[in-house]
Amino acid sequence: MTITQIIYWLELTGVAVFAVTGALEASRRQMDIVGFVLIATFTGIGGGTVRDVITGATPVFWIRDPAWVITCIGSAVFTYFTAHLVERRYVALIWLDALGLAMFGVTGAAIGLNLGVSPLVAIILGTITATFGGMVRDVVCNEIPLILRPEIYITCALLGASIYVIGTDILSLPRAPVALIAFLCSFALRASAIWFKLSFPVYRARPGREY
Amino acid sequence: MTITQIIYWLELTGVAVFAVTGALEASRRQMDIVGFVLIATFTGIGGGTVRDVITGATPVFWIRDPAWVITCIGSAVFTYFTAHLVERRYVALIWLDALGLAMFGVTGAAIGLNLGVSPLVAIILGTITATFGGMVRDVVCNEIPLILRPEIYITCALLGASIYVIGTDILSLPRAPVALIAFLCSFALRASAIWFKLSFPVYRARPGREY
Amino acid sequence: MTITQIIYWLELTGVAVFAVTGALEASRRQMDIVGFVLIATFTGIGGGTVRDVITGATPVFWIRDPAWVITCIGSAVFTYFTAHLVERRYVALIWLDALGLAMFGVTGAAIGLNLGVSPLVAIILGTITATFGGMVRDVVCNEIPLILRPEIYITCALLGASIYVIGTDILSLPRAPVALIAFLCSFALRASAIWFKLSFPVYRARPGREY
Repeated sequence: MTITQIIYWLELTGVAVFAVTGALEASRRQMDIVGFVLIATFTGIGGGTVRDVITGATPVFWIRDPAWVITCIGSAVFTYFTAHLVERRYVALIWLDALGLAMFGVTGAAIGLNLGVSPLVAIILGTITATFGGMVRDVVCNEIPLILRPEIYITCALLGASIYVIGTDILSLPRAPVALIAFLCSFALRASAIWFKLSFPVYRARPGREY
Repeated sequence: MTITQIIYWLELTGVAVFAVTGALEASRRQMDIVGFVLIATFTGIGGGTVRDVITGATPVFWIRDPAWVITCIGSAVFTYFTAHLVERRYVALIWLDALGLAMFGVTGAAIGLNLGVSPLVAIILGTITATFGGMVRDVVCNEIPLILRPEIYITCALLGASIYVIGTDILSLPRAPVALIAFLCSFALRASAIWFKLSFPVYRARPGREY
Repeated sequence: MTITQIIYWLELTGVAVFAVTGALEASRRQMDIVGFVLIATFTGIGGGTVRDVITGATPVFWIRDPAWVITCIGSAVFTYFTAHLVERRYVALIWLDALGLAMFGVTGAAIGLNLGVSPLVAIILGTITATFGGMVRDVVCNEIPLILRPEIYITCALLGASIYVIGTDILSLPRAPVALIAFLCSFALRASAIWFKLSFPVYRARPGREY
């Protein structure tokens, strides 16, 4: 399997996984089937859309290939009919989100490097791809965005993207194993953050005043 | 009148109508004249801007032709001086929004087909064009977005876009009458939804828990 | 110093200044260092990113040149370690925001004119560049957006952009001094608005009803 295929399948799985988190959020808000499809699609393809738009890779990926949208719609419909089987839907949402986060951090950075951007920018593109879809999901559904909660979140996408960029672009290691290692490290960090409630020290000086 | 002209006039009317809904929302929030112009412009050209950006049709339509922005500014100023004459401004907003929704669903799909995208993607582009401007209006003004309310809303844009795409692209019927029929069906569905409070069954299993 | 260099340095200073306002907001919300960098970067490069995307100048400016992102990260880290020295952080935020607003209004309009858009659209591009970053900062941090507060705000960006466009494109005056004058007028208006709580009359007819 070539690196292009690995990236493609990681990305497709990531889209499906993020779409399911969007549909789970829709189920928590008791929306109808159209709301499920809408939120699932926003979440699944939101990050990649922003990445494509700011790099000028337009028309964006899901316009060139309808498979992506079909994946989101399928995930939404599947979740609509099975979500009641999941005992703790918010926990499922958090863990699937962690999976998608780790996948998109790596694929976003890889796509950035393929476009020939600098290493720093490739890392940022990976982070944007990984975090934007979930941010839209949370803002539209009036949830506190995961990126603003105290547990380590963005840093996991940053870590995965950084390992991939440093490993392939700077150390010139073979791309497929580096992609796998980057994904695993990223997911492991997020899993630890969820499990042990890991967080960075916050700015404690004093809260804001209104003047 | 050619199909291009019909699309142009439907689109221009849709922009003006959506701009007025934005200005009515600004009047409900008691903003100043600059706020009226800002919200009216966001609402009027927001959906088409997103459509152009993701399809790569940049510079976006209102940069290539200043008529669109002038239409929005004119609608905002007109509404600023006449909104007090409308007894029930929220009702006016809802019905004008329904009109714009039906127009943009058809024109968005038509513009998508002209760009050569697949039928499924053309339907999605129509739906995005029709719903995005109103969503921005509601988010910026802290209103619950119409797309998240229980009544049938997005489905109306989906219906209009689908009729146009199936009629012209798949059945190869003449485009002008199909555009008109698609617009009328879309508006009729939304009108019924407003009038009879039509809604799809929501996901009832149980509300979300915080864990 | 040529006009291109003046625009570049105004823009770089504006990005740094806006990034600091984002980091100050993060300090008021007691975020961690990653939150500081994230909000600072959104605020610093948000307006220019939207300007580049809708005019089709992609890849956007900070992808072509990593200096912009490094500036944002540096501003965020600097603020993280010094914000506790500022007695009244919200006041600092408001005044730095005024500085950035005046800078970006002029540079946004100048970049628009360089792309060959019409004068009206150049003024709008300047206004978007100046206001969008701050709007994203406020929405993400759950602050009431400055653009929706009663004091004169957007109009200051409109004024700076208009003076620059009218002076250089219509009256054909030399660009460097016009840019400086436009910046000073814009900042002076915003400073007066903050100091004397200047505002336009709001729409007073009556507040909105729910029907």
